[in-house]
Amino acid sequence: MSENYQKTFDRLCLSMRETALLRSTFSLLGWDEQTGMPPAAADYRGEQMAHLAGIIHRRRTDSQLGDWLEQLAESPLCADPHSVQGTIVRESKRQFERHRKLPEALVMELTRTAVQGQHDWQQARAKNDFSIFMPSLTKLVGLKQQEADAIGYSDCRYDALLDEYEPWETTARVKNILEGLREELVPLLQEIKNSDTTIETGCLNRNFPVEKQRRVGKEVAENIGFDFQQGRLDTTVHPFCTEIGPYDTRITTRYDENFLPTSLFGVLHESGHAIYEQGLCKEWYGLPAGETISLGIHESQSRIWENQIGRSRAFWTGYFPRLQSVFPEALRDISLESFYHAINTVTPSPIRVEADEITYNLHILIRFELEQLLLNDDVAIQDLPEAWDDKYESYLGIRPQTASEGVLQDIHWSGGAFGYFPTYALGNLYSAQFFAKSETDLGDLTTQVANGHFDPFREWLRENIHQHGQCYSAGELVERVTGEPLTHRYLIDYLRTKASEIYGL
Amino acid sequence: MSENYQKTFDRLCLSMRETALLRSTFSLLGWDEQTGMPPAAADYRGEQMAHLAGIIHRRRTDSQLGDWLEQLAESPLCADPHSVQGTIVRESKRQFERHRKLPEALVMELTRTAVQGQHDWQQARAKNDFSIFMPSLTKLVGLKQQEADAIGYSDCRYDALLDEYEPWETTARVKNILEGLREELVPLLQEIKNSDTTIETGCLNRNFPVEKQRRVGKEVAENIGFDFQQGRLDTTVHPFCTEIGPYDTRITTRYDENFLPTSLFGVLHESGHAIYEQGLCKEWYGLPAGETISLGIHESQSRIWENQIGRSRAFWTGYFPRLQSVFPEALRDISLESFYHAINTVTPSPIRVEADEITYNLHILIRFELEQLLLNDDVAIQDLPEAWDDKYESYLGIRPQTASEGVLQDIHWSGGAFGYFPTYALGNLYSAQFFAKSETDLGDLTTQVANGHFDPFREWLRENIHQHGQCYSAGELVERVTGEPLTHRYLIDYLRTKASEIYGL
Repeated sequence: MSENYQKTFDRLCLSMRETALLRSTFSLLGWDEQTGMPPAAADYRGEQMAHLAGIIHRRRTDSQLGDWLEQLAESPLCADPHSVQGTIVRESKRQFERHRKLPEALVMELTRTAVQGQHDWQQARAKNDFSIFMPSLTKLVGLKQQEADAIGYSDCRYDALLDEYEPWETTARVKNILEGLREELVPLLQEIKNSDTTIETGCLNRNFPVEKQRRVGKEVAENIGFDFQQGRLDTTVHPFCTEIGPYDTRITTRYDENFLPTSLFGVLHESGHAIYEQGLCKEWYGLPAGETISLGIHESQSRIWENQIGRSRAFWTGYFPRLQSVFPEALRDISLESFYHAINTVTPSPIRVEADEITYNLHILIRFELEQLLLNDDVAIQDLPEAWDDKYESYLGIRPQTASEGVLQDIHWSGGAFGYFPTYALGNLYSAQFFAKSETDLGDLTTQVANGHFDPFREWLRENIHQHGQCYSAGELVERVTGEPLTHRYLIDYLRTKASEIYGL
Repeated sequence: MSENYQKTFDRLCLSMRETALLRSTFSLLGWDEQTGMPPAAADYRGEQMAHLAGIIHRRRTDSQLGDWLEQLAESPLCADPHSVQGTIVRESKRQFERHRKLPEALVMELTRTAVQGQHDWQQARAKNDFSIFMPSLTKLVGLKQQEADAIGYSDCRYDALLDEYEPWETTARVKNILEGLREELVPLLQEIKNSDTTIETGCLNRNFPVEKQRRVGKEVAENIGFDFQQGRLDTTVHPFCTEIGPYDTRITTRYDENFLPTSLFGVLHESGHAIYEQGLCKEWYGLPAGETISLGIHESQSRIWENQIGRSRAFWTGYFPRLQSVFPEALRDISLESFYHAINTVTPSPIRVEADEITYNLHILIRFELEQLLLNDDVAIQDLPEAWDDKYESYLGIRPQTASEGVLQDIHWSGGAFGYFPTYALGNLYSAQFFAKSETDLGDLTTQVANGHFDPFREWLRENIHQHGQCYSAGELVERVTGEPLTHRYLIDYLRTKASEIYGL
């Protein structure tokens, strides 16, 4: 009997590994689309991706797979829900049930439209003209509504979409979290505004030749543990991290010759994502035990390197002299303290990816609210730019001056990713809570970081988070690692402590 | 009845177009493998490609496809064998019958081994150590023998493999052609050796910064008509051209800072291939009416731009001043005539892709003979390097000094391409014959080229060759365009005329 279960389990794994070969090929089509595909190839790329998405969807929803999962779910192999077998069966079943609800034609049409959407978005952004993007956005919102309705939900459409990125999370809980954060952050922001401290940030806007930025980025990524034997770094309009196989994780960034943080923190951020992917158990690649848990946990890994490490005084104690030696003209007259203050300055600005750690969460709140309006047809597409700008004025006190720095700044919607943004805020919460625990566990983390010894911290992440794949849900993991459920407290403490010191609150 | 045929034909086309979506995706996996894949990803890439090759093979050999083709072959739709419908059915049937003979497992294993082989070959070449490549080469030769035996042949194994690259061609005819060429070329080579003329080629070995070479390459490719909206140019160890969709043709080159011709003529060559692909009828992409005829015809299109145009006095009359302005230090003191002589110098050298137009065909003869020995087990793999060097000594009077400039110089065998090399020599013959006809048709081609007006010549190629897809076989096409069957005469005349003038024979 148990031998039979084992055979069924092996067949399941083989089938899913074959699907993973196609999924990773699909990722390559997407990576190439963003990094170097000739412009005229966009339509055909949409067809290539739609066709492959169709094949993958058929494999994922094959009734044979359902039969195997049914048999295995009650088997002794899965007695322990956190075991590799238990995880593979449980999570595969969850995905199977979700995918079965989606018609193949919808999956293909969404894929095709997303490629077209990203293409149109790029054009719209370059020409600063929202109307170029309107038709695809309209189509995408319609398709995502269909998707949500096909999946089903008890409370609101948004729940059905959020679940794809953050399993077990709900809109109501996210709303609570984001509003709770706002209640703490808006007064903190006010205190900062009222403080007498002014921080000089001009040093970040000097001239930083792109080639040198590229070299520094590569060096920093390598230092913290991104393995270039198993990855690469490219340039794109919108930075991202993607995996194309167990030994192939690729990150991208963009460069602004007159603003260093874009690529510097961008590379740290994407490297954090990549280190998570590279830290998964290769043996289970393509199966839930070898896959990342949720985008919230994924984001915690990028934010922890970008912020808790990358914007710490310790990090720059070690690395600032090197940065000065690469950019002597720009940084020769700047002290470590001035630099540290500059990269931690808090100022409402229109661009999310360049936002400080405090206002960042308000950027997310705005998107979270707007995409709910879109999905419920509570805002017309043509009114979206104004709705966007109004919210910026209301929450951040600034009004974007152009569509490119307003509603067109993010790639997500153009690729059909609605329900994705809240995972960024969740990532911030997770990262603060994980970091606090790592500090306790590792003892003198500050000294390690200042000395450029990132291995103990990275290994801590690997041991506590990466290697488990999906053996624990996000909620279970945070409790298992830190001893308590997800809470605001660590993020607020971290932000308040840092701001108090820098702004003398 | 005829309506039914039309329906069947449409179904056939739809199915083949879907297969083309996967074939072009397969090409992207291959392109990425060569251009930028992280080193550690090679094994998994082999699995991705093998799996996709399996899916493609299943689609290509589906008995439903066979039924449709059977029905259509005798239908009135195909009454005219050169019509689009006639061509699609005839050529699809030919391919179907070939693919049906190959077991899926062999196709997958060949794909996997080819990826591994290319990886090993790169390592072997970098380390100049043939033994690193031996195991994959041994395996590949064995698999290709299996392939040839599965396909079947009347005369020799080589026929079965050659047919993949040059349909309707035979080993015996190729042997005749290459030996006929040798009989004419060896005495011509001797006359050149005996002449009093010495050509100064040092100007080609000066310093040519890679970034500038890249810029010139892009400019030249664009000038002759490579459309960068539908393509790109990258750097690889071994240059190639590949298509990833109807609007996505990619070429690669390599750069030698101290030898200009590598990239200069390399880019012209690959652009010629790409212009052929870009000149196909987009409407029939993925179907034989929208595909290239044979590698021999493909090679004629690269050689015609590289040699008949790119090594002509007319071309450099127009472009040399620009080249001097890009590389003033290297070329300021060089006259147009000296440069023209330098790029047309005839000297036996060990590297095929850098060979002059006369000795080039002897390089091909060597490979053609060696791969027959390999397939017939008439040479042991470990003796291959010596066999290679011996043939170079015998045919060209030189002995390669290292494995990298000897048996390891070409990528082809590492990717399982046996039977491919003769198409290079065929391409030389076709190109000379086509070019002679284009000169007659276009009137003052020399003046057009000198003025940088490449459009009439490119359009002549498009109209006479590219747009027909596979509506004519290579043999039919050359007769249709030039009024006579393929002959040595044009190539020998062209080579002798040029050599006589330059060497004062």
